[in-house]
Amino acid sequence: MELDNRKSDQGSNAPFSSNLQLYSHCHSSCSWRIPYEYKEVDLAKGEQYSPEFERLNPLHYVPVLVDDNVVVSDSYAIFLHLEEKYTQKPLLPVDPQLRALNLQVASIVHSSIQPLHMLTVLKDMEKMFGEESKPWAQFTINKGFSALEKLLKDFAATYATGELIYMADVFLAPQIEQAVQKFGVDMVNWRMGGDFSFARDLKEILGNEMLWLYETYKALPEFQASSPQRQFDAFIHNP
Amino acid sequence: MELDNRKSDQGSNAPFSSNLQLYSHCHSSCSWRIPYEYKEVDLAKGEQYSPEFERLNPLHYVPVLVDDNVVVSDSYAIFLHLEEKYTQKPLLPVDPQLRALNLQVASIVHSSIQPLHMLTVLKDMEKMFGEESKPWAQFTINKGFSALEKLLKDFAATYATGELIYMADVFLAPQIEQAVQKFGVDMVNWRMGGDFSFARDLKEILGNEMLWLYETYKALPEFQASSPQRQFDAFIHNP
Repeated sequence: MELDNRKSDQGSNAPFSSNLQLYSHCHSSCSWRIPYEYKEVDLAKGEQYSPEFERLNPLHYVPVLVDDNVVVSDSYAIFLHLEEKYTQKPLLPVDPQLRALNLQVASIVHSSIQPLHMLTVLKDMEKMFGEESKPWAQFTINKGFSALEKLLKDFAATYATGELIYMADVFLAPQIEQAVQKFGVDMVNWRMGGDFSFARDLKEILGNEMLWLYETYKALPEFQASSPQRQFDAFIHNP
Repeated sequence: MELDNRKSDQGSNAPFSSNLQLYSHCHSSCSWRIPYEYKEVDLAKGEQYSPEFERLNPLHYVPVLVDDNVVVSDSYAIFLHLEEKYTQKPLLPVDPQLRALNLQVASIVHSSIQPLHMLTVLKDMEKMFGEESKPWAQFTINKGFSALEKLLKDFAATYATGELIYMADVFLAPQIEQAVQKFGVDMVNWRMGGDFSFARDLKEILGNEMLWLYETYKALPEFQASSPQRQFDAFIHNP
């Protein structure tokens, strides 16, 4: 099985280096966090199990980043690698509490929400428990969002942790989008014990922090450009 | 409900600062990754749901680190905070590939193994699917270890990524220990498509990379000192 080595049109827009290649798939919300030259791994065809891809990531997950001689997979690890190496546009704030908060919010998305509802895991669960797993995904997302909302309420402004886009936003944006589009989590009616006393302006109308952030993210050109629908392999999977 | 503010004897051995406090529980493998002054949160009594603890971490998980004015929870985020602030004993290598590998191995443990078998998640799964979840935990651990073994085979020496202890080891040690002690994963008979051509000396005899590492970790004084059985709240939960 050969991996698809076509480059996407986005390749030329890769912000960092012409040697950055991201092995990815349009349905991967983890991949969405990373800027790249796009190299499709067709998850539907099982290309993640090919010997060639297994050498890159024996866990068979996208994304995998190849940066010259460095190979790194897992979106949190990829993010940290990029953040350390490409310092033009830092996405971790300098202030220690804000920096810790960003690491933590990203980590909650990365380890306490997304892994519990990723496609492979839901398929494994259905095989093992013989039950539909979508309610599990929704439960997991609601639980995580409820915590995130409480965690962010003293910090969120235009973006998750203030007036600038940071790591927390990079991880939250695809997580919220996927919650809404893929798992039908209703953000408008979504209420899980959040304290809404902090709501103001549009936030007051929209009703909660996560929905406010969703609306903010959707308006960003970067969010639109990196969305799954805009990836060149999306035409194949959603013609 | 009041959190237990007794200090452990280990408190005085905290390697970094007298202002470092870790809210934790002896059964938490995530907490085990972090050096600390120990503040027990009794998960069995539900102290993680107290208003006081919820202010620290609305996700209700240990560990939470309080470092002067900075509050950070989630072991990966805590590790990165400590690594950046306390630079005396770095646990991330300078070499970019080795550094990326360490970030990645830790991330696999942190997001692709541990969250899928943590106690809260297994309890939630049993409620939702009405089935015993231990086989799920074992399946999850085996899948992760299989990938880790392939990923490490070109790098592992005395420790996971070479001759020095790095971040990968800090995350692997409690994960392997918990696999064996809590979920009964049989490391000796454990075979999931690993390539054993790299085995040498004791590794050859023991049969696989993860078991080799387990034996190495168990011999470390730091591993023994930070093991759950040695925490002061372990007497309460396993008298």
